[in-house]
Amino acid sequence: MASVASEIDALLEQAARLAAEHLEASADRSRPVVDWRDPADLERELALELPDRGRPLEEVIADARRFLARSVRTGHPFFFNQLFNRIEPAAILGEWLAAVANTSMYTYEAAPVFTLIEEKLSERLCALVGFEHGEGVLGPGGSTSNLMAMLAARTRTWPRSRIAGLPAGERPAVLASAEAHYSIPRAASILGLGLEAVIPVPCDDRGAMRPEELARALASAAAAGRKPFFVCATAGTTMAGAYDPVAAIAPLCREHGAWLHVDAAYGGSALFSPRHRHLLAGIDQADSVAWNPHKAMAVPLHCSALLMRRRGDLEETFATSADYLFHDTEEAGRDRGDMTLQCGRRVDALKLWLAWQAIGDDGFRARVDHAFALVAAARERVSARPDFELVREPMGCNLLFRWLPAADAPPEAVDALNVALRERLKRSGRIMLNYSRLDGRVALRLVLTHPELRPADLDEVLDAVAEAGRAAELAQA
Amino acid sequence: MASVASEIDALLEQAARLAAEHLEASADRSRPVVDWRDPADLERELALELPDRGRPLEEVIADARRFLARSVRTGHPFFFNQLFNRIEPAAILGEWLAAVANTSMYTYEAAPVFTLIEEKLSERLCALVGFEHGEGVLGPGGSTSNLMAMLAARTRTWPRSRIAGLPAGERPAVLASAEAHYSIPRAASILGLGLEAVIPVPCDDRGAMRPEELARALASAAAAGRKPFFVCATAGTTMAGAYDPVAAIAPLCREHGAWLHVDAAYGGSALFSPRHRHLLAGIDQADSVAWNPHKAMAVPLHCSALLMRRRGDLEETFATSADYLFHDTEEAGRDRGDMTLQCGRRVDALKLWLAWQAIGDDGFRARVDHAFALVAAARERVSARPDFELVREPMGCNLLFRWLPAADAPPEAVDALNVALRERLKRSGRIMLNYSRLDGRVALRLVLTHPELRPADLDEVLDAVAEAGRAAELAQA
Repeated sequence: MASVASEIDALLEQAARLAAEHLEASADRSRPVVDWRDPADLERELALELPDRGRPLEEVIADARRFLARSVRTGHPFFFNQLFNRIEPAAILGEWLAAVANTSMYTYEAAPVFTLIEEKLSERLCALVGFEHGEGVLGPGGSTSNLMAMLAARTRTWPRSRIAGLPAGERPAVLASAEAHYSIPRAASILGLGLEAVIPVPCDDRGAMRPEELARALASAAAAGRKPFFVCATAGTTMAGAYDPVAAIAPLCREHGAWLHVDAAYGGSALFSPRHRHLLAGIDQADSVAWNPHKAMAVPLHCSALLMRRRGDLEETFATSADYLFHDTEEAGRDRGDMTLQCGRRVDALKLWLAWQAIGDDGFRARVDHAFALVAAARERVSARPDFELVREPMGCNLLFRWLPAADAPPEAVDALNVALRERLKRSGRIMLNYSRLDGRVALRLVLTHPELRPADLDEVLDAVAEAGRAAELAQA
Repeated sequence: MASVASEIDALLEQAARLAAEHLEASADRSRPVVDWRDPADLERELALELPDRGRPLEEVIADARRFLARSVRTGHPFFFNQLFNRIEPAAILGEWLAAVANTSMYTYEAAPVFTLIEEKLSERLCALVGFEHGEGVLGPGGSTSNLMAMLAARTRTWPRSRIAGLPAGERPAVLASAEAHYSIPRAASILGLGLEAVIPVPCDDRGAMRPEELARALASAAAAGRKPFFVCATAGTTMAGAYDPVAAIAPLCREHGAWLHVDAAYGGSALFSPRHRHLLAGIDQADSVAWNPHKAMAVPLHCSALLMRRRGDLEETFATSADYLFHDTEEAGRDRGDMTLQCGRRVDALKLWLAWQAIGDDGFRARVDHAFALVAAARERVSARPDFELVREPMGCNLLFRWLPAADAPPEAVDALNVALRERLKRSGRIMLNYSRLDGRVALRLVLTHPELRPADLDEVLDAVAEAGRAAELAQA
């Protein structure tokens, strides 16, 4: 057994070394974000067959090293592709030890320490939102948190629906901005309401929901015999990073008896900043809030909080009578398994707690302020350059812009060039950034939450984008 | 920056050391499974406040060490409390590196290596099930996989429901055995069908669904104007570990046009064993299968596969038009984000792939055969002892039994004593095992899948159970 133990020690040490190498490569601006391979080539290179017989650990470790070398360095300062980026080392410690402690969050007896940690985190996140008697639970991502919120609203509006299904003749309506996350319509579909239940509310030119349009949509839905039971306001939209005006939206929800959910998956962390938290004014009036620390709070995927204003709402929505799991013990009041749609649930709390210890409220505030300052700097640069166009006035931590060729070109050509330059940058590994079609044209998106990104980096990034644009233009000529 | 890098190196090394200590303590039969603390005491001891300012890493590491010391050692041979236990070291390597690579499984471009690994695993799991042209995806647990399967069935049965919601006047019915997992009725509730849509089918005395009862239930549901669209057969029930007879169930589903789902979350791994795979005979006729490698395949939570017989079913159920994420690139055909109800999705594939390399098909087969042999040995011991009673004839890897006091006692007293002895064992940290009420009486459950559990351990376990029973009896006298 001693040799087994030392084999495990050696394996874990090797893992630590591989991890450190990957993190160092990711922090190095002179290295690429990814060593790009097309799928067929990568498949050939990796040789992923599963074996009949177990292989020696050294070989398995060598495979793992090959895999990291071909993976995207998502902690790289020039990885702008998603809403997450560099993670905090203390969060890695948390994720690693959660893996080793390997347990499930359903009962206190199976996860005593992590249950108390999740309680504490929920309490603190609720306090930041302004929920004085709230509750919260962590789950596998913002889509699930949004789904759970809509289900809680459905259960509150039609309590018998849990037992008897959706009442016949009801025509439920869900309202969200036209730029809300796609998980909102999908949740409506999953819950049996259908995509047609969703009424998209128009946005202003920064991408924020117009409250007067919401008022109009609520009134006309009601007039048409529909029941608007769920309104989703977004704090930090996926593309524009825009903040819907919650303070203006909340009274409209109250007036119509609709549940107000705030999808703050991305934008919630602005609550740490006295300078920027006004963007979420009114969030304390919400019924529920989704907030993903795995986006802008430096912990690995996934870590998504669903926060409820009223304690008890989660259990009312999800409680079961699984007597093989939930027992009438002294500590049963602490069991968190009936607060979610999962049964087994991994430990996502430890990494957030440890990262929070290392960073502190102050550190989160500094990161938020840094990101907003970067956006302002990027906006200024883009506006000052004739080869770029600002697509939206930024409200949050994203910048939407596009490259413009020197000579006049038809709109479709500009769109195609921006898509092409973005592909070039990705395949070269120099920069990864994403895009979408917005108001009928292609917009590139910079996500500016990386804590080590400096204003000077922005010049390098914009130069690289312009260079790739010119190369794309030449290639098409 | 050099000092930051070396600080990270030091942190990761410390993490590896803490992990190794925890794994060694977990492997040591002479150490307790848990150093039990009641919630209020543990709360005081841990002091979990979140700080205004970041704290030095050494302090954070010291906290992590304290947390592990009070966590349940789920890899301990005497941890029988849940359906998972000891994890494979190579799986830890996978989980650790996935944390560091920190990406999301929605697109090939964000997760090239892990996308290909998940494809390969899905292919292999499908092959084991017998799906020749199948597909699969990993998700956050069996409850979600079951929900997704039921949603796929709902979408196939009422294709317009995605758009228009559930059609009025339809009375959908879901059939599952009376001992199926609670996520099945909960899924019916979430999807808008209501708990009343679920028809529990009676089981035989080993806990397996009776096909003649299913035939009867299907016929009477149809006769009553209900539409039985989804049948769930369980392969490895949560309590008894029983296997529903899929080969007898499948033709009944075909006859009624019902989707056949097999919840093999726990029992799927028997497919590795030529000796035991007959328990799943007919599974290749299923429309979908849920299979959780995090249960009996030695990888940490979570790792749950949803496998579909027909390629395309997942996308038909879940596809969205999120153009900010899914692009018309050359490699877009490999994107896996439209195969699930999540958006961001963590990498659960790497740990399974690496564990599989270390263990091999052969190793999984040996584990399955070992578990079944242990159950037979445990069954024999329990039957031979006058102070124990077998509650069910075992079919799978669980043993259901109860302790009997020496003197005759009323049934409620025997129930209470078994609950009390189980609490005693947990609080002493000596053994953790679970229980439920079954056929009106309390049954203790041993989950016998730990690869290092030996027949001789069973005597120690049963002696400890009996001793705790006598102590509970004395305490009540």
